[in-house]
Amino acid sequence: MKNGPHVFVCDKLIRFHHCDPAGIVFYPQYFVLFNELVEDWFNQGLKTDFAAFHTVERMGTPMRKIECDFLLPSEVGETLRMRLAVRQIGNSSLHLDVSANHPDDFPRVQAKLLIVLISLDTQRPIPFPEELRTRMEKYMA
Amino acid sequence: MKNGPHVFVCDKLIRFHHCDPAGIVFYPQYFVLFNELVEDWFNQGLKTDFAAFHTVERMGTPMRKIECDFLLPSEVGETLRMRLAVRQIGNSSLHLDVSANHPDDFPRVQAKLLIVLISLDTQRPIPFPEELRTRMEKYMA
Amino acid sequence: MKNGPHVFVCDKLIRFHHCDPAGIVFYPQYFVLFNELVEDWFNQGLKTDFAAFHTVERMGTPMRKIECDFLLPSEVGETLRMRLAVRQIGNSSLHLDVSANHPDDFPRVQAKLLIVLISLDTQRPIPFPEELRTRMEKYMA
Amino acid sequence: MKNGPHVFVCDKLIRFHHCDPAGIVFYPQYFVLFNELVEDWFNQGLKTDFAAFHTVERMGTPMRKIECDFLLPSEVGETLRMRLAVRQIGNSSLHLDVSANHPDDFPRVQAKLLIVLISLDTQRPIPFPEELRTRMEKYMA
Repeated sequence: MKNGPHVFVCDKLIRFHHCDPAGIVFYPQYFVLFNELVEDWFNQGLKTDFAAFHTVERMGTPMRKIECDFLLPSEVGETLRMRLAVRQIGNSSLHLDVSANHPDDFPRVQAKLLIVLISLDTQRPIPFPEELRTRMEKYMA
Repeated sequence: MKNGPHVFVCDKLIRFHHCDPAGIVFYPQYFVLFNELVEDWFNQGLKTDFAAFHTVERMGTPMRKIECDFLLPSEVGETLRMRLAVRQIGNSSLHLDVSANHPDDFPRVQAKLLIVLISLDTQRPIPFPEELRTRMEKYMA
Repeated sequence: MKNGPHVFVCDKLIRFHHCDPAGIVFYPQYFVLFNELVEDWFNQGLKTDFAAFHTVERMGTPMRKIECDFLLPSEVGETLRMRLAVRQIGNSSLHLDVSANHPDDFPRVQAKLLIVLISLDTQRPIPFPEELRTRMEKYMA
Repeated sequence: MKNGPHVFVCDKLIRFHHCDPAGIVFYPQYFVLFNELVEDWFNQGLKTDFAAFHTVERMGTPMRKIECDFLLPSEVGETLRMRLAVRQIGNSSLHLDVSANHPDDFPRVQAKLLIVLISLDTQRPIPFPEELRTRMEKYMA
């Protein structure tokens, strides 16, 4: 995944609390960081308040499927460049490509995420609002 | 994955701290629970002290690849039956099938994990010790 | 705090995911474990389903104040004996003494917790239901 | 604690993963955030790389004692202003006052932290290096 106009990018510091006794990122923490990345994408990229999206609009974005490769370990104090691009948007499904790389190094983690849009009140899938879909499509490769 | 002689099984309570504002398990917490499952498998199934494996034997088991389906949400207070079976053991790679189900309900989460055995001192893959391999093979389908 | 008839006791394994790059428990994880202890006390000691207490009864138990001493570090693989006793119950306040010790060793962590009972709907303090108060009082020193 | 020349300040977004099923910050997450605050203070305020401090200098800063008041709940999407000031520096002890407030609102959380400087190799307290002490003293009230 290249860093281009269609990719949302943000840098994340690998903190002490992300790391395990082996001194490297405890792998579930990458998913916490990817959740932060999606949150940042909503807030900054899509200009859609991620908190209000849940608490006011009553929509949720649960994870449906993940495929993730952990290519190299990451250590405390490193700053990883995280990228997000949209692969495909269905009626209520959102396919994302995300990655975490060290700028001077090989890729660290690459993942394909399948997120579903649901109503928090019915817990059922709902179609993406048209305006949100349009904003998301700008991040398609 | 059936519950049979070749499957390691343990039950896990979904606790308050596993759940998010939507009232369901925050998905990275499933990976924390799968890490507990592997830890329990070492301690109870393989009779290999997971802590000493790291701190004394200086071996580590980083995650190399995950494929995970989140089929249904899980709620605080539910007890999930978690299962682990060995799909394949390579020279230094370990393919596991893990799942988390509600006993009276449809499967919740199913994942394929690829773990690599490394030396914590060299950070390089090492072959499984023969005795550990033999114990692990008892959990092959 | 002695282990007596008025003390709720449970053992907790210090897991890999509780520990930090220094190889010892990352201190916020003690509070996650104390939260588990309160959860276990409700479920097993008070015979009050902690999950339903929140989701059905719509009551919550937010933390109001903590004083905590971290006396000695704890390492991955240790099993800590955790104890909970009630110091005082007010109208809607609950003062708990909790601790985590290694059975063969000096105390590790000791804390005083002040919890408030609230209605999740109004977010305001409410008095303890009489039956719950009676059950809690059995754990007073 | 006022925002002055002697106070280290940074803003933190309350993220989805900090919050519990009651929709507010799960209290152990405040301590993760205070740990981030200390990390940021080292990196940005003290110009001392917090990661290298551990991995290269082999020094650690375990928590010895906490007193913490949780005054008001915080919700997902809020940005809290976090402050850190030095109350006292002993030979190998560091007394910090930290807080997390909503800019337009009453204080949320206030805590007194007692941190001890140790050698990670001996696990014993060591005196603060003179240069680090000098930098820390700039944050005394």
